[in-house]
Amino acid sequence: MTKARAVILGMISTVIFSCNEKNDRKAEIETSEKQEMLFPKGDKVANDKFVGNVYQAILSDDGTRVSNVTFEANGRTNWHNHPGGQTLLVTDGVGYHQEEGKPVQKIKKGDVIKIGKNVKHWHGGSENQAMTHIAVSIDHEKNPSQWFEPVTDEQFTKEISKK
Amino acid sequence: MTKARAVILGMISTVIFSCNEKNDRKAEIETSEKQEMLFPKGDKVANDKFVGNVYQAILSDDGTRVSNVTFEANGRTNWHNHPGGQTLLVTDGVGYHQEEGKPVQKIKKGDVIKIGKNVKHWHGGSENQAMTHIAVSIDHEKNPSQWFEPVTDEQFTKEISKK
Repeated sequence: MTKARAVILGMISTVIFSCNEKNDRKAEIETSEKQEMLFPKGDKVANDKFVGNVYQAILSDDGTRVSNVTFEANGRTNWHNHPGGQTLLVTDGVGYHQEEGKPVQKIKKGDVIKIGKNVKHWHGGSENQAMTHIAVSIDHEKNPSQWFEPVTDEQFTKEISKK
Repeated sequence: MTKARAVILGMISTVIFSCNEKNDRKAEIETSEKQEMLFPKGDKVANDKFVGNVYQAILSDDGTRVSNVTFEANGRTNWHNHPGGQTLLVTDGVGYHQEEGKPVQKIKKGDVIKIGKNVKHWHGGSENQAMTHIAVSIDHEKNPSQWFEPVTDEQFTKEISKK
């Protein structure tokens, strides 16, 4: 190979490398943006009302409670109800919601789920993806949520296998 | 230039071109994704409680009202209040919020704004960008919003020029 050809081939490699590097950097930024929260993630919940890894930030709490909740994969609420009802607004990811006596629903970014007064239900991430939702718990101050038994691993696996 | 060098220089141009083309296509996709709505945009509001182009979708309305509101640039509410208070969750864009007697606030994607009971205020898009927020109007069924005078073009321009 002549010296000139070697230099030119070196230039091609540099262009290809910098092009790939640019795209890789972009991919990294997109991944981190995708994982960035729209609203504050809050703290990891440390109580027995949830199974797995769940994060909650209370955004406002004046009569009606507005909170941002992130469930990692397999993270979920126990069975519970809201005497004032609740609206869930899914802002990211994929998860599940189930009302007692009904089939489990797969829920994803952009979905709005309305839960009636005193309806026993659970919600959480899917088996392999996190899910984040805004939860609007209506009239929560006077009528706080009532909490029941956990959704066991066996129940979770059985219910979602029907999807 | 030898024939071999011309061929190699042609290859470099092709690599650079395809690299840029790839990034341009990516940018186009990102732009169209950015313009997609997280929640339904709803219908254009056709009443005298707003100035400019505003879209509203009521997502739930059982005691507390949860709605998705999009203000195009310069679109805004009239002055109004909420006897039960309100929380705004900005999901996209940049706009303004102002409580009576206070300076205008610039608000953007990710911001949470809590408005106290009976506080007279307005909100809308900025002078050159749209803004979308979820509005949680607490106890709206029993205590609906009270509406007052429009924010005139003169008032809008004057208030935002102070930012």
